[in-house]
Amino acid sequence: MTDFAATRRLFHLPEGMIYLDGNSLGPLPVAAEARVRDVLAREWGGELIKAWNSADWINLPAQVGDRIGRLIGAPVGSVATGDTLSVKVFQALAAALALRPERKVVLSDTGNFPSDLYIADGLLKALGGGLELRLVAPEDVADAIDDSVAVTLITEVDYRTGRRHDMAGLTAKAHAAGAIAVWDLAHSAGAIPVDVTSADADFAVGCTYKYLNGGPGAPAFIYVAPRFAECARPILSGWMGHEAPFAFDLDYRPHRSVERMRVGTPPVLALAVLDAALDAWEGVSMADVRAASIRLSERFIAEVEARCPDLTLASPRDPAMRGSQVSFRHPQGYAIMQALIANTVIGDFRAPDLVRFGFTPLYLSEDAVVDAAKVLERVMRERLWDDPAYATRSAVT
Amino acid sequence: MTDFAATRRLFHLPEGMIYLDGNSLGPLPVAAEARVRDVLAREWGGELIKAWNSADWINLPAQVGDRIGRLIGAPVGSVATGDTLSVKVFQALAAALALRPERKVVLSDTGNFPSDLYIADGLLKALGGGLELRLVAPEDVADAIDDSVAVTLITEVDYRTGRRHDMAGLTAKAHAAGAIAVWDLAHSAGAIPVDVTSADADFAVGCTYKYLNGGPGAPAFIYVAPRFAECARPILSGWMGHEAPFAFDLDYRPHRSVERMRVGTPPVLALAVLDAALDAWEGVSMADVRAASIRLSERFIAEVEARCPDLTLASPRDPAMRGSQVSFRHPQGYAIMQALIANTVIGDFRAPDLVRFGFTPLYLSEDAVVDAAKVLERVMRERLWDDPAYATRSAVT
Repeated sequence: MTDFAATRRLFHLPEGMIYLDGNSLGPLPVAAEARVRDVLAREWGGELIKAWNSADWINLPAQVGDRIGRLIGAPVGSVATGDTLSVKVFQALAAALALRPERKVVLSDTGNFPSDLYIADGLLKALGGGLELRLVAPEDVADAIDDSVAVTLITEVDYRTGRRHDMAGLTAKAHAAGAIAVWDLAHSAGAIPVDVTSADADFAVGCTYKYLNGGPGAPAFIYVAPRFAECARPILSGWMGHEAPFAFDLDYRPHRSVERMRVGTPPVLALAVLDAALDAWEGVSMADVRAASIRLSERFIAEVEARCPDLTLASPRDPAMRGSQVSFRHPQGYAIMQALIANTVIGDFRAPDLVRFGFTPLYLSEDAVVDAAKVLERVMRERLWDDPAYATRSAVT
Repeated sequence: MTDFAATRRLFHLPEGMIYLDGNSLGPLPVAAEARVRDVLAREWGGELIKAWNSADWINLPAQVGDRIGRLIGAPVGSVATGDTLSVKVFQALAAALALRPERKVVLSDTGNFPSDLYIADGLLKALGGGLELRLVAPEDVADAIDDSVAVTLITEVDYRTGRRHDMAGLTAKAHAAGAIAVWDLAHSAGAIPVDVTSADADFAVGCTYKYLNGGPGAPAFIYVAPRFAECARPILSGWMGHEAPFAFDLDYRPHRSVERMRVGTPPVLALAVLDAALDAWEGVSMADVRAASIRLSERFIAEVEARCPDLTLASPRDPAMRGSQVSFRHPQGYAIMQALIANTVIGDFRAPDLVRFGFTPLYLSEDAVVDAAKVLERVMRERLWDDPAYATRSAVT
């Protein structure tokens, strides 16, 4: 049984703040501070260039990749880390398209994170040749998979409502139609049990600054199914994905593993922080996390619906259909969230009218969830949101 | 007059180590440690998601870009930061090619950093359409520029020998032939005076972990000439390059500035370290740095040639033709460098036979350079390199 009282002590959480935004940026792991000091003073400061060997910086991306792999059902040696999620989406989609050169359609849905669609748009425009990004409503994805589809590019959990796609089912449908399945696990990894192997995903990508608590702009990851590890074409063919980067050959020769998806010099400091953050998952069962997440979110929904009749649940009511977040709709959603934040409950707003809350059992208790609902009740009852200060949106919400 | 005694105090340098590898990884800036503690404890730890606004994380990439811009002659608002140099090469080359769709040749040279060639190879293979990477010897680049060339992709300073290309001259030649000039400044920024504006470069990219001391795997930068800022096509069209990232529109609309070259969520911790590292350049004149760099490297060459007759200078003898590094050839170069490192002088080896030394006046004194030559003399005279322990190459050299 996972000891969530113990995992809670592994994170810094400001006194008096109820943090329901771990789906956007996880909190600071206590272990990160000592690790960063060590990387700066002892490794970089004391060893300088020698630290690539002496501190094994060169293998840090693979080590961290394997730790993430354990959380998403990926075998050792099948996850590479580095760059940002956008770059990894680009690589995965390009590699997938190269496996189906005779087909022209990338299928995605309007519930996908817009950045994934932007990346697909940029890639398809550059490649030309009649490639098309076909967008359907989330509920129409399954029916839209046919033998014109080269690649399905789907985010498992909707960033707005938490609605969850059937990863295994859609992958099977894609494979039956001869398509390659690329999955974005940004709101899945560390949030819900994921098994890329049993779901038979071809490629999967994700970020680590949400449920994995790697810090703002932490490195991303990419999984390549072992069957494609030696043939996937890395469009971003950088020197760290070369079979022998330090031979400095003029010709590119991809590494015979997922390492080919590495691009440039790895971000050592950020990887070290992520590595320290992943310590919190040692001994943690994702089944326990899932059970606790459902308990927390169900309780929150019940409390909010009882206390705030003006808010409408935007997430699926069935917890099996959700990731680890819950959203409500209200025309004044933006101002409501600003008022909540001013009153120490941190969630976030997503256009046009969603207030969004993430549930992270590693550091969130049921008491805190109930307290958050009480503050939300006060914001609604006393119309605390009706303040001119909350009318203007800032750049980042 | 730049006070190099003062700048030296801004860096941690291990007692007893002579560091001549700042062209590979700059040393730890003293200011980085406090800055990182602040980002972790106060910003991430204390503010969590709110820090995107309250600590202005969202604008950090642009602020750091402008500071780098001052070192390379780029106007405010023309440099974006993030990702790795490989990713930025990919973006610059793709954007440049899109400006010359009717041409098929990317011209580079065999002295370019292999990673740039790998990236070009990956991009051109993906784009297809008869695009060709044409490689010539470095001394033949000027003559090879003709009206078949879409883009020149040139690294100003050769990573092996320090040989320097004529940036303004080759750019003028490229423009006269109707080509777009992309410059890699990896071994230039912070090493020598660079002026992308007077050289009329179209795109320029660089890394920040060498002469700019940003740390292992620090974020890269990209300069886009203002004339292309609103039309360059960002093939990696990520959400942070969107005109309104937080509108979460389904359609991509590039930012009307160099910000369109941003891709994913910025690496805040790494950018903060880089920002702290750039403090060391405040009040520093690049002309002074250049004069000091020439003094150091001329002295080193004179001392080594007098003391070590078996080593052959591989760098141009004329300092005007060099960046801020010097290399010597010897068939036992690898073992010689290992012996040097074991005797506290840190340079590096580059295949097949180069021992390489970087000169960084911000923290390197003339006395240290002479001492390094004396150690090298001892390594050669006493054949300290002739040790079985130095025969096998490690993964990273």
